[in-house]
Amino acid sequence: MLKPLGERIVIKVIEDTEQTSGGIFIPESAKEKPQKGEVVAVGQGEVDDKGERKPMDVKVGDIVLYAKYAGTDVKLDDVSYKILSIKDALAIVE
Amino acid sequence: MLKPLGERIVIKVIEDTEQTSGGIFIPESAKEKPQKGEVVAVGQGEVDDKGERKPMDVKVGDIVLYAKYAGTDVKLDDVSYKILSIKDALAIVE
Amino acid sequence: MLKPLGERIVIKVIEDTEQTSGGIFIPESAKEKPQKGEVVAVGQGEVDDKGERKPMDVKVGDIVLYAKYAGTDVKLDDVSYKILSIKDALAIVE
Amino acid sequence: MLKPLGERIVIKVIEDTEQTSGGIFIPESAKEKPQKGEVVAVGQGEVDDKGERKPMDVKVGDIVLYAKYAGTDVKLDDVSYKILSIKDALAIVE
Amino acid sequence: MLKPLGERIVIKVIEDTEQTSGGIFIPESAKEKPQKGEVVAVGQGEVDDKGERKPMDVKVGDIVLYAKYAGTDVKLDDVSYKILSIKDALAIVE
Amino acid sequence: MLKPLGERIVIKVIEDTEQTSGGIFIPESAKEKPQKGEVVAVGQGEVDDKGERKPMDVKVGDIVLYAKYAGTDVKLDDVSYKILSIKDALAIVE
Amino acid sequence: MLKPLGERIVIKVIEDTEQTSGGIFIPESAKEKPQKGEVVAVGQGEVDDKGERKPMDVKVGDIVLYAKYAGTDVKLDDVSYKILSIKDALAIVE
Repeated sequence: MLKPLGERIVIKVIEDTEQTSGGIFIPESAKEKPQKGEVVAVGQGEVDDKGERKPMDVKVGDIVLYAKYAGTDVKLDDVSYKILSIKDALAIVE
Repeated sequence: MLKPLGERIVIKVIEDTEQTSGGIFIPESAKEKPQKGEVVAVGQGEVDDKGERKPMDVKVGDIVLYAKYAGTDVKLDDVSYKILSIKDALAIVE
Repeated sequence: MLKPLGERIVIKVIEDTEQTSGGIFIPESAKEKPQKGEVVAVGQGEVDDKGERKPMDVKVGDIVLYAKYAGTDVKLDDVSYKILSIKDALAIVE
Repeated sequence: MLKPLGERIVIKVIEDTEQTSGGIFIPESAKEKPQKGEVVAVGQGEVDDKGERKPMDVKVGDIVLYAKYAGTDVKLDDVSYKILSIKDALAIVE
Repeated sequence: MLKPLGERIVIKVIEDTEQTSGGIFIPESAKEKPQKGEVVAVGQGEVDDKGERKPMDVKVGDIVLYAKYAGTDVKLDDVSYKILSIKDALAIVE
Repeated sequence: MLKPLGERIVIKVIEDTEQTSGGIFIPESAKEKPQKGEVVAVGQGEVDDKGERKPMDVKVGDIVLYAKYAGTDVKLDDVSYKILSIKDALAIVE
Repeated sequence: MLKPLGERIVIKVIEDTEQTSGGIFIPESAKEKPQKGEVVAVGQGEVDDKGERKPMDVKVGDIVLYAKYAGTDVKLDDVSYKILSIKDALAIVE
């Protein structure tokens, strides 16, 4: 298992389909296409100047949109994951 | 539905017309043409160095002008949305 | 009407004339020619790290000089406005 | 009259002469030649993170050296002025 | 032995194999392939604006993923080490 | 006389000689050759976020090494001076 | 003698040999080869936003690794020294 450091999260990549189950469609022509993933691990958060952790606004199980070229790809037991800064997660899909 | 993270907002894009209903006209020749959209979701806001959220100065239903090339496009049930940092929203149209 | 967000102001552009009424002349050859405008709306101000608004040093009615290429142009009922960061306003003409 | 905003000052440009009255000579070959000007107006100062103004270390009447390409030129009643950040003023000539 | 300064850590590089023992596979095609290493020394941490050390979220013995081109390589008694900022360590492999 | 503003100092340039009196030799081939100068004036120091001046670690009479291309040259009564940020002064020669 | 300013240190350069006495070997092919030096002087440290000095984590006599192209070279009585920011010192060799 991966335990992300600092303000990072680990997400399981959800493959693009023309029309996803939740009805989210990501246009082909967009300059920077967002992608979807399921949060599988959440870091402790960035330490601020008072020595306290900033809140991480996502939790395990959340489906998030993120910028396509953000983060670092890893494969674990043949599943694609991405290690991503929370700042590159754009929105939670509800 | 999309729940924007951090200091982001989600807006429903309002298509450019030569003369909009509210009388706002955006000149063709402007270097960086602003566009209009309706705020449909507002993030919790950036966390400052004291661990508190900075205020988000827009609310759901506000019509905002924003820089054309800012943010990330998504389509949901065939409607065009944009996920945008509050810093790229220029003004509220009243 | 436009309500500028954050540290932005809205100004009504005053067209350049060789010699303006107040006697301000802006030289042709200057690298970055400032222009004049009348402040018509003032944002709430930037939120500092203590959660308080920084003061906006201009008020509605002030005539300000600003850097020519700063800000974003909009037209409202055929009048030219500019949405500008307070940081791009150089001086008040009194 | 011009009232500079924030940390800006307004100076009346003093034309370069080979040898100025105060004995300051600015070499031709210097990469970035400083110039002299008389301070005619001083802004309120930058607002720090505690909401207080940082001190402006010059006053009206001071003769200052400043980097040649800094600031913005304006003419008022045929006199050349420069609107300059206090950070681009290098030294007071006494 | 190496004692890393500030927010740095020293790791013993673990050579890439197609399929590592812990089942982590790092895809060939990834833009920025992460690599694995064992933490052998941990710095005291960055000093924040209150004069206190920020926490280092790894300890000696942790296996971490890090960006391939981060840090500085050194060899000590024929073993490859890397001196790395904690910010370039992405996740702990558990 | 020059009174440097903010965190600046004024130094009287000491000409390079192959072997200076104090035994400091500055190699020809160095990428960025430091030079020597005598401090003749010291600014009040940068104002920090608490409104207090940061200390200036040099005093009038100190001989300092500084990066060759830093600062701004001025001549006063035929003597070469340099107005320099304290941050570009590398070390005091004792 | 040199007294480094701010967060700088002065180190006596230790020449590269294929295999140094302490067993540290620095690979030829490394992108950014670290080098070794003995600390001969330590600055007072950077002043933080509370007006206090940040700690310098090295002391006179320490052997440190540093990035090859960091800092400024000086020669004093035919010995090579380097004036270096503490941030460019990577680790202490023990």
